Amino acid sequence: MIDTPDRVCAIRWRENALELLDQRLLPEVARYRRLNTVTEAAQAIREMVVRGAPAIGVAAAYSVVLAARARYAENPQSWQTLINADLALLVESRPTAVNLCWAVRRMAQVIAGLAGDPEQRLLMEARGIHSEDIAANRRMGQLGAALLGQRGAVLTHCNAGALATGGYGTALGVIRAGYAAGLIERVYVDETRPWLQGARLTAWELVQDRIPTTLLADAAAAALLRQGQVRWVIVGADRIAANGDVANKIGTYHLAIAARYHGVRFMVVAPTSTVDLQMVDGAAIPIEQRAADELLNLGGLPVAATGTEVWNPSFDVTPAELVDALVTERGVALKPDATQLARLMLF
Amino acid sequence: MIDTPDRVCAIRWRENALELLDQRLLPEVARYRRLNTVTEAAQAIREMVVRGAPAIGVAAAYSVVLAARARYAENPQSWQTLINADLALLVESRPTAVNLCWAVRRMAQVIAGLAGDPEQRLLMEARGIHSEDIAANRRMGQLGAALLGQRGAVLTHCNAGALATGGYGTALGVIRAGYAAGLIERVYVDETRPWLQGARLTAWELVQDRIPTTLLADAAAAALLRQGQVRWVIVGADRIAANGDVANKIGTYHLAIAARYHGVRFMVVAPTSTVDLQMVDGAAIPIEQRAADELLNLGGLPVAATGTEVWNPSFDVTPAELVDALVTERGVALKPDATQLARLMLF
Repeated sequence: MIDTPDRVCAIRWRENALELLDQRLLPEVARYRRLNTVTEAAQAIREMVVRGAPAIGVAAAYSVVLAARARYAENPQSWQTLINADLALLVESRPTAVNLCWAVRRMAQVIAGLAGDPEQRLLMEARGIHSEDIAANRRMGQLGAALLGQRGAVLTHCNAGALATGGYGTALGVIRAGYAAGLIERVYVDETRPWLQGARLTAWELVQDRIPTTLLADAAAAALLRQGQVRWVIVGADRIAANGDVANKIGTYHLAIAARYHGVRFMVVAPTSTVDLQMVDGAAIPIEQRAADELLNLGGLPVAATGTEVWNPSFDVTPAELVDALVTERGVALKPDATQLARLMLF
Repeated sequence: MIDTPDRVCAIRWRENALELLDQRLLPEVARYRRLNTVTEAAQAIREMVVRGAPAIGVAAAYSVVLAARARYAENPQSWQTLINADLALLVESRPTAVNLCWAVRRMAQVIAGLAGDPEQRLLMEARGIHSEDIAANRRMGQLGAALLGQRGAVLTHCNAGALATGGYGTALGVIRAGYAAGLIERVYVDETRPWLQGARLTAWELVQDRIPTTLLADAAAAALLRQGQVRWVIVGADRIAANGDVANKIGTYHLAIAARYHGVRFMVVAPTSTVDLQMVDGAAIPIEQRAADELLNLGGLPVAATGTEVWNPSFDVTPAELVDALVTERGVALKPDATQLARLMLF
């Protein structure tokens, strides 16, 4: 098992199967779902048993191990061709997070060079992706915390924590490191409708770490920023375009606008596996639309009149010009742009 | 009974008692609560059986009738003194909406000049307040619709509709008039956490009027405005300071910032009973904090870890500089300021 540096472990490989902490049940129930096939795993990703761009990447890597085992058993000669259908299934399970494609592509490169039973070699690669993600988060935590400056409060949106990654977290990694260094006194957390990842997941992670945590409605964030205690807004990312535009959980863009209006700085924390140089800018990034049901029902009961239409994008795009700092495991870009992104990615 | 010009009637006087449509049960159940005493009425206001600044004012006026009946029965000589405790109870039931104070003060002025059984005279006054509110909404609807210009979509927050007023609505009055005039093609509605007045009430009102309605999460509004279809953000107000600063449902301020950032115009629609010249600016307006429970639980189930603190202001203040048009029943102020507010109120 991967050594996760904190108590929360969203993804683990146990007794030859992938186990995912079912994040839809948190914070009430911490229950792992055991997945034995790639079909089950792709469905779990689609249905948000696991979520968060880096975590989806790690889960997808382990899912490729499940696929390879079955395809090799099915046909030891042509499994490397047969598995392509499984890789496509995984890539299509969530359209916005690019780490998913990145992890599947990396596993595919290993597959291409294999002979004999692939399971152990692919499991080693998946564990490598997992460990590297945790190490990257640790590194980003240090780099981001070094930017914080004077002690104060921070605001985060959605969950970019241990649950959204291999462990430790991206935005929450910076927050954990900043709190440990005495630079953060309180974390304000947007509840993050419609899925409430802030209320259900981020508050849970922070309370477990005994970090002072205050929950607020998403639309209250601007009023909070006006009060002056918050020094940084710190968020993760699902995909970053070549010019530094950031796709992240719906509501991130509104926070970036409000932060700029109040002179509060805005930090995006994401591993370079989140950067997609094939996307010239944010307009090219596919934005997942989720079910109307997420807004029309609450706790199983209808909350809006029949006949109400719904616009429910899962992500929005924050233009690079609103980002003060992009923190990756390879370094920091202040006021990120195409030149800086290329430098981070290529050198 | 007051002739309300639309199907929705939040407040009515029937068989010697006040009846309030219990807005906490909408849209599933449309049930009136019958209130026979001022204590019951104040509790209903506090617990949000009725909400919306103008509606609270109208409900309070009828509540004074209930109080007067009981106090006159208790002591026909000193009832005009005894009732002061009831008036104070009503005023304190919600701290932010100034229409409540305004309506109670107007009823108190009538009380001061009364001799004999007060019920019929006070009921006439309450009905007058109710009718005048509907007439004011009709007038604001026309004035606001005249500002809309080219046909397009609009975005609203919370509920400033028939349910929030004596009838027809303030922001929704403008939207109803604008839709009738062919100037509005679609209404986007913020769900408005934590109470979901947008999902539960505004969508319900609009769907009943067959106006095309699209619901979105509050934090999605900035991404929507970026798309360019929305030409106006149109909201109500709970209290307006002498300089034009606007207290309204939490989230209004964030919308005003996002609207300005995208060049979308921002309209506030409220009767002059909402203007409080005693408040020099928005910083003086008392902002009600509501229970942590509204964010910690959903449909009766906990959604955030034990130990999570909550910041749950019910209102925020939008500075006048972000308001493009203030529409009142006495006229319109473009880019409202202290001079224009004084002109609207005093002449």
